[in-house]
Amino acid sequence: MKIARFYHAGCPVCVDAERQLASSLDPSRFRVEVVHLGREKGRLADAERAGVRSVPALVIEDRVYHINFGAALSDLKS
Amino acid sequence: MKIARFYHAGCPVCVDAERQLASSLDPSRFRVEVVHLGREKGRLADAERAGVRSVPALVIEDRVYHINFGAALSDLKS
Repeated sequence: MKIARFYHAGCPVCVDAERQLASSLDPSRFRVEVVHLGREKGRLADAERAGVRSVPALVIEDRVYHINFGAALSDLKS
Repeated sequence: MKIARFYHAGCPVCVDAERQLASSLDPSRFRVEVVHLGREKGRLADAERAGVRSVPALVIEDRVYHINFGAALSDLKS
């Protein structure tokens, strides 16, 4: 089972991507962990290390998929 | 069964997104159609109408998810 981390910030673009894309992954192969970076500031460093530059983003194994554009990671730090 | 259309142009960013993301959708809910816009120029108008501005992109129902950035749709028209 692979872990897919979906990073978001609660923005409309994020909510849509979670509903339509992150929740569409094959549950027999992926466990999707949803991380709200607006609320879990302690995860920002992890996201940055994984290569996330904006949200929403999906990290599968060591690959980052930026999906459309909701907010820059740098804007979530303040 | 929903149709998910994965538009790409054979670029490395596209190939990676197809391998890791498009192929990870739940096969019990989605039939994934892969469209190579570099080879199937006749599909460019469809992609544009669906709201695709760059590839790789995944269209699920009427929503477009631009995934990272490989090439602009306008560059594929030439």
